Amino acid sequence: MKNPVHQPVDASLVPRFAGHATFMRSPAKASAAGLDVALVGIPWDGGTTNRAGARHGPREVRNQSSLMRRANHQSGIAPFDLVEVADVGDLAVQPIDLLAALAQIEQGISSICLEGALPLSVGGDHLTTLPVLRAIHKARGVPLGLVQFDAHSDTNDRYFGDNLYTHGTPFRRAIEEGVLDPRRIIQIGIRGSVYDVDEHAWAKAQGIRIIYIEEFAERGPDDVVSEVHRLLGDAPAYVTFDIDCIDPSMAPGTGTPEIGGLTTREAQALVRGLRGLNVVGADVVEVSPPFDVGGSTALVGATFLFELLCVMAEARSKTRA
Amino acid sequence: MKNPVHQPVDASLVPRFAGHATFMRSPAKASAAGLDVALVGIPWDGGTTNRAGARHGPREVRNQSSLMRRANHQSGIAPFDLVEVADVGDLAVQPIDLLAALAQIEQGISSICLEGALPLSVGGDHLTTLPVLRAIHKARGVPLGLVQFDAHSDTNDRYFGDNLYTHGTPFRRAIEEGVLDPRRIIQIGIRGSVYDVDEHAWAKAQGIRIIYIEEFAERGPDDVVSEVHRLLGDAPAYVTFDIDCIDPSMAPGTGTPEIGGLTTREAQALVRGLRGLNVVGADVVEVSPPFDVGGSTALVGATFLFELLCVMAEARSKTRA
Amino acid sequence: MKNPVHQPVDASLVPRFAGHATFMRSPAKASAAGLDVALVGIPWDGGTTNRAGARHGPREVRNQSSLMRRANHQSGIAPFDLVEVADVGDLAVQPIDLLAALAQIEQGISSICLEGALPLSVGGDHLTTLPVLRAIHKARGVPLGLVQFDAHSDTNDRYFGDNLYTHGTPFRRAIEEGVLDPRRIIQIGIRGSVYDVDEHAWAKAQGIRIIYIEEFAERGPDDVVSEVHRLLGDAPAYVTFDIDCIDPSMAPGTGTPEIGGLTTREAQALVRGLRGLNVVGADVVEVSPPFDVGGSTALVGATFLFELLCVMAEARSKTRA
Amino acid sequence: MKNPVHQPVDASLVPRFAGHATFMRSPAKASAAGLDVALVGIPWDGGTTNRAGARHGPREVRNQSSLMRRANHQSGIAPFDLVEVADVGDLAVQPIDLLAALAQIEQGISSICLEGALPLSVGGDHLTTLPVLRAIHKARGVPLGLVQFDAHSDTNDRYFGDNLYTHGTPFRRAIEEGVLDPRRIIQIGIRGSVYDVDEHAWAKAQGIRIIYIEEFAERGPDDVVSEVHRLLGDAPAYVTFDIDCIDPSMAPGTGTPEIGGLTTREAQALVRGLRGLNVVGADVVEVSPPFDVGGSTALVGATFLFELLCVMAEARSKTRA
Amino acid sequence: MKNPVHQPVDASLVPRFAGHATFMRSPAKASAAGLDVALVGIPWDGGTTNRAGARHGPREVRNQSSLMRRANHQSGIAPFDLVEVADVGDLAVQPIDLLAALAQIEQGISSICLEGALPLSVGGDHLTTLPVLRAIHKARGVPLGLVQFDAHSDTNDRYFGDNLYTHGTPFRRAIEEGVLDPRRIIQIGIRGSVYDVDEHAWAKAQGIRIIYIEEFAERGPDDVVSEVHRLLGDAPAYVTFDIDCIDPSMAPGTGTPEIGGLTTREAQALVRGLRGLNVVGADVVEVSPPFDVGGSTALVGATFLFELLCVMAEARSKTRA
Amino acid sequence: MKNPVHQPVDASLVPRFAGHATFMRSPAKASAAGLDVALVGIPWDGGTTNRAGARHGPREVRNQSSLMRRANHQSGIAPFDLVEVADVGDLAVQPIDLLAALAQIEQGISSICLEGALPLSVGGDHLTTLPVLRAIHKARGVPLGLVQFDAHSDTNDRYFGDNLYTHGTPFRRAIEEGVLDPRRIIQIGIRGSVYDVDEHAWAKAQGIRIIYIEEFAERGPDDVVSEVHRLLGDAPAYVTFDIDCIDPSMAPGTGTPEIGGLTTREAQALVRGLRGLNVVGADVVEVSPPFDVGGSTALVGATFLFELLCVMAEARSKTRA
Repeated sequence: MKNPVHQPVDASLVPRFAGHATFMRSPAKASAAGLDVALVGIPWDGGTTNRAGARHGPREVRNQSSLMRRANHQSGIAPFDLVEVADVGDLAVQPIDLLAALAQIEQGISSICLEGALPLSVGGDHLTTLPVLRAIHKARGVPLGLVQFDAHSDTNDRYFGDNLYTHGTPFRRAIEEGVLDPRRIIQIGIRGSVYDVDEHAWAKAQGIRIIYIEEFAERGPDDVVSEVHRLLGDAPAYVTFDIDCIDPSMAPGTGTPEIGGLTTREAQALVRGLRGLNVVGADVVEVSPPFDVGGSTALVGATFLFELLCVMAEARSKTRA
Repeated sequence: MKNPVHQPVDASLVPRFAGHATFMRSPAKASAAGLDVALVGIPWDGGTTNRAGARHGPREVRNQSSLMRRANHQSGIAPFDLVEVADVGDLAVQPIDLLAALAQIEQGISSICLEGALPLSVGGDHLTTLPVLRAIHKARGVPLGLVQFDAHSDTNDRYFGDNLYTHGTPFRRAIEEGVLDPRRIIQIGIRGSVYDVDEHAWAKAQGIRIIYIEEFAERGPDDVVSEVHRLLGDAPAYVTFDIDCIDPSMAPGTGTPEIGGLTTREAQALVRGLRGLNVVGADVVEVSPPFDVGGSTALVGATFLFELLCVMAEARSKTRA
Repeated sequence: MKNPVHQPVDASLVPRFAGHATFMRSPAKASAAGLDVALVGIPWDGGTTNRAGARHGPREVRNQSSLMRRANHQSGIAPFDLVEVADVGDLAVQPIDLLAALAQIEQGISSICLEGALPLSVGGDHLTTLPVLRAIHKARGVPLGLVQFDAHSDTNDRYFGDNLYTHGTPFRRAIEEGVLDPRRIIQIGIRGSVYDVDEHAWAKAQGIRIIYIEEFAERGPDDVVSEVHRLLGDAPAYVTFDIDCIDPSMAPGTGTPEIGGLTTREAQALVRGLRGLNVVGADVVEVSPPFDVGGSTALVGATFLFELLCVMAEARSKTRA
Repeated sequence: MKNPVHQPVDASLVPRFAGHATFMRSPAKASAAGLDVALVGIPWDGGTTNRAGARHGPREVRNQSSLMRRANHQSGIAPFDLVEVADVGDLAVQPIDLLAALAQIEQGISSICLEGALPLSVGGDHLTTLPVLRAIHKARGVPLGLVQFDAHSDTNDRYFGDNLYTHGTPFRRAIEEGVLDPRRIIQIGIRGSVYDVDEHAWAKAQGIRIIYIEEFAERGPDDVVSEVHRLLGDAPAYVTFDIDCIDPSMAPGTGTPEIGGLTTREAQALVRGLRGLNVVGADVVEVSPPFDVGGSTALVGATFLFELLCVMAEARSKTRA
Repeated sequence: MKNPVHQPVDASLVPRFAGHATFMRSPAKASAAGLDVALVGIPWDGGTTNRAGARHGPREVRNQSSLMRRANHQSGIAPFDLVEVADVGDLAVQPIDLLAALAQIEQGISSICLEGALPLSVGGDHLTTLPVLRAIHKARGVPLGLVQFDAHSDTNDRYFGDNLYTHGTPFRRAIEEGVLDPRRIIQIGIRGSVYDVDEHAWAKAQGIRIIYIEEFAERGPDDVVSEVHRLLGDAPAYVTFDIDCIDPSMAPGTGTPEIGGLTTREAQALVRGLRGLNVVGADVVEVSPPFDVGGSTALVGATFLFELLCVMAEARSKTRA
Repeated sequence: MKNPVHQPVDASLVPRFAGHATFMRSPAKASAAGLDVALVGIPWDGGTTNRAGARHGPREVRNQSSLMRRANHQSGIAPFDLVEVADVGDLAVQPIDLLAALAQIEQGISSICLEGALPLSVGGDHLTTLPVLRAIHKARGVPLGLVQFDAHSDTNDRYFGDNLYTHGTPFRRAIEEGVLDPRRIIQIGIRGSVYDVDEHAWAKAQGIRIIYIEEFAERGPDDVVSEVHRLLGDAPAYVTFDIDCIDPSMAPGTGTPEIGGLTTREAQALVRGLRGLNVVGADVVEVSPPFDVGGSTALVGATFLFELLCVMAEARSKTRA
């Protein structure tokens, strides 16, 4: 594809601090029609079991994303030169009724899928990923693979008695529903104290590959990236980037920080290593501005949104070619 | 009553920054048995329509309440000399299921009532006051009067379609349920832009007395206090102190700040003016630490918890006498 | 005028934290055509002599202005019911060349005037008001009156040798250029230490009426409002609201704070008192987010933007009637 | 006196953010020789019973005092035109040994007195005022009067068993030592909960006049100022300004904040009302930067340092005349 | 040992933000009787030579420790399944008299030792470790080994003239008193500019092994851990974790930060490597909340408290077996 | 050289928080006469294209530099024992007129050069380095080499139309003017998204050696240091340390942060590796306190100022020998 019509504001004419804050200063659009990648916010955190605030994530990630420029210096990918990308705004999700909210999210993402665009969303807490996956699964008809950057496996069963839906359970539900193929799930950066020594037994029994931070620290990004490609192959894959995969010194603004995390440099190497995967959607979740410090977490989130966009734009452009 | 057994930590022996943080350094108790006033936290904010965080209110109010001393220099009331007061901890309310949470709160406060203590709670968002009122109403069998310090009337009907229960609706629901007597409700400090010019029409039609901040500014605290006493009389009254009644410069840590509010000095004059009312319960709500600045809002909340305790302790000691 | 077509997002459907941040959630428009009042940002602070940062003002005022609702509870004015109001974005002003920037601002406001809308802008430092006044003056052909809320007179001559244009000089320049009529200028809230005991001699000699904070404190808002109306009359008047008129405890995020300032409650009484003036433009300036605390100053700025909009919308609707 | 040689940096040539931070940009001097008023820092907080940090007060007050200009717009006093004023640096007080520290402070202030200058110091916690008073008393040979702006009386006897010297006891010690004349002590702004209803009985028995905040609020500054003059008369008086007299919304950075305090506008009226007293020394204490918010408390402290300097400079210039 | 009776609050029933804040939500106990490990706070910072605030450490570490769960995912240790652990509160140490404070701390820890529990304390500045070591030494009768994680050697002689006791001198004093065996002391992470090139000469002459950060960076944690075991052997060892060993980006809230420090990931590898040592006590010190950023340092402190608890619980359980 | 007369304040007598804040507590001097290295502030940020604030850099770096001690524990260099070092204050640069400001800076540095001292400056934004280089070049008459630690190449041509001078262009201008020898320029740490994939083509065509962060991460500091020495040789070299070379988690207070940066530990290894170069001047720039968090960035800046001083002092002492 040549010469996409949707272009971000030209920073050589308009200073970065000026203008409406859209994702990476891309055009604001009312729908995903005509887009290859739809940047969309999901401002909802009703699944949060401890410190809420991710509902404010999309706005602050938009703010900090003004610092993004057009091209990736490492990969040479310039996403706005490859595909049509725009900011379709936020899904209108009410904060009071959890099940209704999940339906609203699924419906919003389904619209994007129907219009032929890939969703690249900004949460919101990690439970938002469940209805996103449902929508994509519905559109594509096959169980999806998953690359999950996270401090937590998020495969618990229930919380506070009998609550099935929290940000600690989305991937268990998605597996149970057939939305995800557990043997094509890889979780990277898992760490932190656990409720129980056997907390991850169910996940492992399903076939999920968990790469704890200690294993990652020994192997390094290149080796882990190879395993990701082996595991995911060419089938449709979703990438979910929970900001708490990053060390809290670099991403303090999140609900459940765990020390000893990935550095941004390591995570950049990992995400850039996803080039070549058949990425059909992605998200950045759990950026919680009320717990952020000077916007630093939102900047990390915005940068990984850009890194993911580069991977997705290249994947999409090849599909289109 | 003489020589209550429950006493706060002696600051002349243990520095204020030392020891477990309980409300005003009072003893931690597992139940309200034997207490006159039960200090209790309700860490829940599931009714919040905009910026959440009041779930963290009890903990930070406890922290800042270490600065409280034993006696009120203005009224001369020393509550721990008058009645038995202790901190019975937080109600265990899960953050995921709204209706279940309201039931948990009502049950927790009912227990306190059954044990014969008056509840003095710290929220939590303003929807927590609804189940508290239900519990007290159930225990007493008569509709309650209400003195409400607030920037907002909180008598709206529904939000986001058909949601009946949010922190903008508790007093409408309480009136509908017969828990509150609308002709004995007075709201002080109301202000801020409104959704509709007629937004308060329903409330006024029920007989609620709204004292907007502009009226308050003209009349001053003494005159308003007189009206409160005329309106509330001797029948059981509940006092709810939404921290957003206070100007955001003094109480920034709240979900829906409105400029031009009460000063703390004005509010102290108002609360101290409640002496003589038949106060059967009270609360401080909407302290939202994630939006606070240096603990200042929690300190304001803690100080009004103390001011309310003075009023309640005196009222209770007279009842007991 | 009935049923304006431009309406803000409906908060009963879309939560306040969701969606693109425009001024008061009004529609984003590419031009002022068809508007009565054009909300516009001027993100530039090149005239600042001490602490810069007001270039970031428009973005954060937009953010906090999500908290504004449709109607003014005190005056009953619902601006979006009276006139067409929208957010026309920010002027594209480069931060490097001061004289070029002033020209860019003047040109941008001239476009708005040519399209028939009244400009209601958000700065930027106070020097931005000079080119705004120039543009309005050019469009109207008569010297303008000025109601200035401010801690500083901003009528100095030169800074750092021979610099004529800083945020301390705009009104001297505007008088010299015939843009303002000095006998119809009133400055309210002036205070703070001065470079020289005679610092305001020039201003007074021109006929500018300076109401120092001490005089204001004695007289109160109602009396001062009367004087404003006597002085300004029916001729075209501009209202400039330098956020530093407000006490730094309520508006810390500004470049040159001076203690002992107006409270927001006092300032609301003053601005609401401007109803009936022939307001042809207005601004809120000197909100400096890097020095703000938790967005409180931006919230004050957003609220006064709304208060000014109410006054302007009423004035405009009468003109149109 | 005409044409003092010590002058602050000229802000019309050097921006306020430039240059070494001295008090009000006055010259840094190694000693008080030749000075009328010696600005001096006392960075010590070893007497603090709760939250320390006032040791960092002098540095941050210096920082914020760059915002001060040459003249007082209300009184017309330009202190640097009247007398010789300079910054003699900080006393070198070690933070480990309390009694040794008190001796170091007394010695440092004695040197200033011996050189003929009046000390205007910045603390440090309120215990620093005790050795300052001792030094001035020693130099002058008569018990001093005291105008104390404060939330707390600071006339307690002992803390934590048998500790005689804390920031809660200085004025009791000073009275016992004959350094202060208790019948010429007036304390303004006292408030906050108390350890005991009779906590101030000793102070009142000595003849100290306590004006609680509630009395102040009723009478206003002018009436209180009159009483100050009646009480203090023409004999030597010391003025101590504990920053916690100011409301915590305006001065959060202090160790023992109490809500409902003086506004800065009220306090300015009070301090300006001290003109005509025979002020022989003054201080601003208890500014605690680690608990400050954006330097706001230090700015309040710096401004009152300037207000006190104006009063002292005028008093001194009359003495000299 | 099986089925310890002391158990933390169950997070599957009570949300993490609810309830009184005790260390890791363990039960609050009045004494150490019946415990294997006593978690205890020492809120005192009278030995601090620069920026104080560590007196507030225990409270904030308790707050953040709510995020800890029951088991260590790396080692599989679940301390509450192995031994009896509870929070015995804070030692009541007054902040005014240094020598009296040291005696109070020693007495408090001696009580814990007498009751048969191992102390795991949270400071407080690093001088608190001296009386803790004295108490353990007295209880055990042999000089102790020491594993010290720190940016500073803390083996200086005197400060500010002749002060022997500051947070820069504890280990020199402990060696002089025979409390520590200098040949079994290893210090890891030492860095930062020094007062004198030969500053560590005394320490090295005593036989202390200093591993500067540069040496650590070259060797990595595994190799250093081996040396620790060689040096310490099976004899009783104390572990002191000064939070400033960690890089200030990860632990800003401390009095004397030094850049270029350990990452938390490195430090976790080091502390986990201590399994097998005969740990008879441990502490986390120098967490200074007034200088912290969003609680991040307290979270790091809480996590290392948990890591140390895992090591101690395993050691204790083997002793008991 | 032996026994330099200029010495910093002795921290064993005066606590670090006491006294006027000069760079590393060195003596304040009115001129550079008699100095080997002149520490000088350049408080100007008029070249900043996005977030300003570096004008406040010198003051906060001075503040945090109080934490520096006399000697480098790694290299053993004690700069104040080797050469004469003092703080000559800030250049008086006005913030309004860009070209005039560049002239003021060049003149100020030229004075230092004329007096025979090496300038070690603290910015200010990166455009301040251009006039510094001009002044040194003028004094020495040969094109200089450059070691640049930075996230950005700063070799762009123009901004916002036709603006030649911004903080994104200094090294392009310096090469065009013959001030720098492009073949002896090495840039380390470059990263972040770019305006154009070919953004660095001009720089590379001139012969500039760019070491992107990815290359650095693979090679490590030692190997890169070797290349620096090969490239720079013995000819005069300038070292510019843009604080944004450091990861934003460690240095958040800067205008254009880019994640994935150098750690301070890596950067210390790099700067220490510069020993032996013929360093004729150096700077630390782009520390922007309004965007800093708790002074952490200023501390990083102060520490690298010290590291650079060590390298320069050694180089100078050898020249003198």
